[in-house]
Amino acid sequence: MGDGAEFDAIRRLLDIWGSNASGIGDDAAIVDVPSGERLVVSTDASVENVHFRREWLTAEEIGGRAAAAALSDLAAMAATPRGLLLALALPDDWRTELDALARGVGNVASTARCPIIGGNITLASELSLTLTVLGSAVVPLERRGAIIGDDIYVTGRLGGPGAALKSWLGGATPSPEHRARFASPAPRLREARWLASLGAHASIDISDGLLGDAAHLARASHVSIVLDERAIPCVDGVMLDDACVSGEEYELLVAMPHDASIDTDAFEREFGLPITRVGSVVSSAQGTVRFVGGLVPTSRGHDHLK
Amino acid sequence: MGDGAEFDAIRRLLDIWGSNASGIGDDAAIVDVPSGERLVVSTDASVENVHFRREWLTAEEIGGRAAAAALSDLAAMAATPRGLLLALALPDDWRTELDALARGVGNVASTARCPIIGGNITLASELSLTLTVLGSAVVPLERRGAIIGDDIYVTGRLGGPGAALKSWLGGATPSPEHRARFASPAPRLREARWLASLGAHASIDISDGLLGDAAHLARASHVSIVLDERAIPCVDGVMLDDACVSGEEYELLVAMPHDASIDTDAFEREFGLPITRVGSVVSSAQGTVRFVGGLVPTSRGHDHLK
Repeated sequence: MGDGAEFDAIRRLLDIWGSNASGIGDDAAIVDVPSGERLVVSTDASVENVHFRREWLTAEEIGGRAAAAALSDLAAMAATPRGLLLALALPDDWRTELDALARGVGNVASTARCPIIGGNITLASELSLTLTVLGSAVVPLERRGAIIGDDIYVTGRLGGPGAALKSWLGGATPSPEHRARFASPAPRLREARWLASLGAHASIDISDGLLGDAAHLARASHVSIVLDERAIPCVDGVMLDDACVSGEEYELLVAMPHDASIDTDAFEREFGLPITRVGSVVSSAQGTVRFVGGLVPTSRGHDHLK
Repeated sequence: MGDGAEFDAIRRLLDIWGSNASGIGDDAAIVDVPSGERLVVSTDASVENVHFRREWLTAEEIGGRAAAAALSDLAAMAATPRGLLLALALPDDWRTELDALARGVGNVASTARCPIIGGNITLASELSLTLTVLGSAVVPLERRGAIIGDDIYVTGRLGGPGAALKSWLGGATPSPEHRARFASPAPRLREARWLASLGAHASIDISDGLLGDAAHLARASHVSIVLDERAIPCVDGVMLDDACVSGEEYELLVAMPHDASIDTDAFEREFGLPITRVGSVVSSAQGTVRFVGGLVPTSRGHDHLK
């Protein structure tokens, strides 16, 4: 690497990432996919004032959240992470936070056992982190495999990120639990592979809200989904209606064969979070989602162009 | 896909890309790497007011240039493109240009026979296109393989992008030739594979300028490079000194075995551009680049954080 601010910044990142950074320095990174596995790849951006505000999060949380959001797409496919590339657009007034941003990305990547294999750094007028993640799986789990009779499960408890957002936008301070769910989501990578090993038919991560993502899964699978509102697990202090449209949860919504016999206690012991049967796949109007009790949430989820 | 501006925008992109878009709609795209080949991946950002100004280029050129810049990293590795992901940050006042941006990306991807396999779209205050490209090669060409005695070749003619930039920044209008070299670069993908098939030892694409990228290659290979300033091919109307530091050329700089016997006429007939021997790899101080005639350019190349 040569001289200049750009290469100095890259050297800092490599120092912070240590042995979790690998193969950086060529025009492109080389990734080896284990024999018999298929590669999956996804790209995801976190933009200041669109996905977060500076005053809500620390720089380390911003980096970690961006990495978790990207890795969550690999979780949705039940893939094992193989590499992460960070394209960082760094305004002048964020330069002092470079180390903290890098630590956030590095810690989440490290926890996910995902090497950081490349990236790009550029000036910009607003902070954005665009992460590309590569993973592999023998059979990647898709959205489109749900069939009639499947049970629908959700990991964790919903509503935290939405509640935190509502507090901030209303000028209040979110509860620590709600804030943590927004600031430090965890990609459910091991959980997804556990569910895939039990024969999961289809999966999606909840980024647009339970209702929106259930609709994505239903449409992709050409089925309909009925959710039981009494079963939906909400974090403390969140109403069901809000939990159903809370985005950026990064929990999994999975269609399991009815006879898969999920041991929910074993799941909770293994992963430290609940898994809950929230509904089932039915044969009525394709691509729709409805509730047993007729609940009609007011919003359909998050739109990144609104 | 669901409702809302975000999904409407994605549907527009898919319409414009037609059959060159594939597998979009899941959380991650699935990429199959041919057996016996290794995957290479790179990510590259084009940001308004950093990499270009709106008044310099059409939206279609902005899209095409961003795709070409990203694909050029695959060319540097002598890889065959396997997929492209576009993360688009789209300000409100660029929404009417979405189609043109997409056409630009799509046309360059199509010419490179690179399917568009995924992406991300988000609001932002400034336009940026972050492209991730995946490719594969049996033996990816790296920067580090140059050895003493190698000949150094460069494709095309240098200086056009730098001259165009100089004109714009000085309030003038660049010549059509200089402008075209800035606005519509071509990733040298087929050229790179041709050179790799003749046993190229190392390669880099010229994004930071001939001198800067020769230094990157020399450092990575632990060798030194001597360039013959009389041999360096410049576009019409550009001085040697400027051509040596003109960035974003997306031409190739390649170290070839001395006995590779490159048929430069055959190259020009096949690809419609020259290839020129501009220097050689020598054994003096590692990582340095010097000129036969002692030319000392004033700048070391482009720094994306300056």
